[in-house]
Amino acid sequence: MKVIVLGGDGFCGWPTSLHLSAQGHDVVIVDNLVRRKADVELEVDSLTPIETLSGRLEAWREVSGNTISHVNLDVAKDYHRLFELLRDYRPDAVVHFAEQRAAPYSMKSEWHKRYTVDNNVNATHNLLCALSELDLDTHIVHLGTMGVYGYGGGAHIPEGYSKVEFISADGKRTPREILFPADPGSVYHMTKNLDQILFLYYNKNYGIRVTDLHQGIVWGTNTAETKRDQRLINRFDYDGDYGTVLNRFLMQAAIGYPLTVHGSGGQTRAFIHIQDTARCVELALLRPPKKGQRVQIFNQMTETHRVRDLARIVSELTGAEIQHLPNPRNEAPENDLLVEARSLVELGLKPTRLEAGLLEEVVEVARRYADRCDRRRIPCTSRWRRDIDLSALPKEQETERAMRKKAV
Amino acid sequence: MKVIVLGGDGFCGWPTSLHLSAQGHDVVIVDNLVRRKADVELEVDSLTPIETLSGRLEAWREVSGNTISHVNLDVAKDYHRLFELLRDYRPDAVVHFAEQRAAPYSMKSEWHKRYTVDNNVNATHNLLCALSELDLDTHIVHLGTMGVYGYGGGAHIPEGYSKVEFISADGKRTPREILFPADPGSVYHMTKNLDQILFLYYNKNYGIRVTDLHQGIVWGTNTAETKRDQRLINRFDYDGDYGTVLNRFLMQAAIGYPLTVHGSGGQTRAFIHIQDTARCVELALLRPPKKGQRVQIFNQMTETHRVRDLARIVSELTGAEIQHLPNPRNEAPENDLLVEARSLVELGLKPTRLEAGLLEEVVEVARRYADRCDRRRIPCTSRWRRDIDLSALPKEQETERAMRKKAV
Repeated sequence: MKVIVLGGDGFCGWPTSLHLSAQGHDVVIVDNLVRRKADVELEVDSLTPIETLSGRLEAWREVSGNTISHVNLDVAKDYHRLFELLRDYRPDAVVHFAEQRAAPYSMKSEWHKRYTVDNNVNATHNLLCALSELDLDTHIVHLGTMGVYGYGGGAHIPEGYSKVEFISADGKRTPREILFPADPGSVYHMTKNLDQILFLYYNKNYGIRVTDLHQGIVWGTNTAETKRDQRLINRFDYDGDYGTVLNRFLMQAAIGYPLTVHGSGGQTRAFIHIQDTARCVELALLRPPKKGQRVQIFNQMTETHRVRDLARIVSELTGAEIQHLPNPRNEAPENDLLVEARSLVELGLKPTRLEAGLLEEVVEVARRYADRCDRRRIPCTSRWRRDIDLSALPKEQETERAMRKKAV
Repeated sequence: MKVIVLGGDGFCGWPTSLHLSAQGHDVVIVDNLVRRKADVELEVDSLTPIETLSGRLEAWREVSGNTISHVNLDVAKDYHRLFELLRDYRPDAVVHFAEQRAAPYSMKSEWHKRYTVDNNVNATHNLLCALSELDLDTHIVHLGTMGVYGYGGGAHIPEGYSKVEFISADGKRTPREILFPADPGSVYHMTKNLDQILFLYYNKNYGIRVTDLHQGIVWGTNTAETKRDQRLINRFDYDGDYGTVLNRFLMQAAIGYPLTVHGSGGQTRAFIHIQDTARCVELALLRPPKKGQRVQIFNQMTETHRVRDLARIVSELTGAEIQHLPNPRNEAPENDLLVEARSLVELGLKPTRLEAGLLEEVVEVARRYADRCDRRRIPCTSRWRRDIDLSALPKEQETERAMRKKAV
């Protein structure tokens, strides 16, 4: 299968590109390296020492014999080059990771909010516009987020669509199946709700085939493919903007920094291992929607946990302390989460469970590269609202004190 | 009340700005004159001879004694100037018309699709971002469209929100009130669905107060205010891109061009007179949502008609022929439309009915300026899908023949 991976140099995009190449697909990565540029902006670096993209691709050629090519273009801005690439390569599928993907980054400032909306909407719309104009029957596999559903109300979350009955003023009931109502929790999450509307429209009007994968929080670092050579290693983000909660805990434990739980830690979230991300994308590629079918939506997650329970598990595994901090997010302190996620398992996914992979992450990644950590980058400095006070965030000195008190 | 009207030089924006000024509000128009530039692009002109914006404002000062000022900036691109204007002027309300507003224009080409999405999303998001950053309690009154609801399924359309019961797999029922599901019929309409998500998020997270007015198709040209001086005359669009259906019929009748009905004309649509648009906006300004209230949604329309019935009414009034053409839109040939629209009437709107205003339009506008019409601009050349064949569109010669056969 000929596959273009938009955003193929990122945390999910890179291991997915390798996995697809290893499975025999012909892969082209489109990436403008903006994720690496954000590291420069934020003065932070992946905990793991990642190779340049050309170095990564060279290493992959050496170890696998497969060639992945790279086209450096901005999907949101370079419409005509995207159009020409699609026209000339005629991919069977496009995997679309080319969006700013961190909620805290999207909330840092006006610039970050506006960049996230402008980039994500135009990237998705450019892709849809080019495919419909070219009349290509290319399947889009898009990485959405569980955050499109919101976490309020304790509702049972379906795979995209809900059966409902509309009740009119005179009591008349009309059954319908609808897209689960949008309830985004950050500007970033909101852009994935905007994507849903774009997909709905282009699917209905032009028959564009789309699978939208609403993914949980990704944890873990490496996959079978990225382990094949040191130069293939995946990025590991631990900073307050791009680090995801479980990876942040692992790294904090490794350097003796307290596990920073925002609020009560009663927020229940959905999780998936990075290896399963790559597998799920391939499963989706192999099961495109039929022509004329509505947007296919799968929930891409394998387990749910409360944040404080994750902290407890990591603490028990490593001896790390837990520290509760003010929550920068505007959200309910506690929530339940009931998620339907059978489709990908039915298609063959064998989930990587937390208990199986956690210790390996601590030993192989977090402790191994602990000396590369810049402790100043750990706190989350984005606030969801101006009345949220983050002054209780740990200062560098306090963190140093905590470190001396307790090292892993 | 201090009011900024974004897009205050346009078809709806101009009479609304005058109406608000006449009612004693302090009005600032923000407009980058892009609507006039689209006339240049499309090689068409308003049927009515409109004054330059500075000429309009000068005339208004003379006849009313009121000053409306104009700031020329692009709301979607000049974020910092928008921010400074809001910071310095601190408006009580912003009326937001600053979006590309024609469905056929949004479907003309890839460029037009991409422009419409980029412009409309960033305009709305810039406004929301600036108001939340400035922590201003400004009320946004936004012009939405009835098209956000779609016209399928014969559903009863509420004012934005529907009571539903969610039915889970095990039959459990959960009542909720939800935003009526999006079902846009063009790229333009889709952008108003995207706006809904932006409003939902900024309302929930920052408490921004929003009234979204889902407007029907506007007909008519002048209002009590634009009639006060020839230089205040409103624009009248009859071309295939910007002309709305009823105004197109009136002008076609005036020049003896057949009334061009797309498809069977069985599409039922909602209508409102331009005078009522201006009144509704002021009614909304006077009834802002309370702090903490969700987005307030009103349906801004006063009657519904099938397109073929409108053609028949105009034909009976003027003797014009009716010609059925292929429909460029991807839509059901016939639909019913049951719309709730009580809120604005309860707030005091006295609707201008079709039967009362139609003849005046024919005599005072369409016939009076008939010699300014460029017949080549009448056909709609945008297609919703590439498999729609518009070759049966009337050629200039045929139109001339039809003219000779039947003149009003």
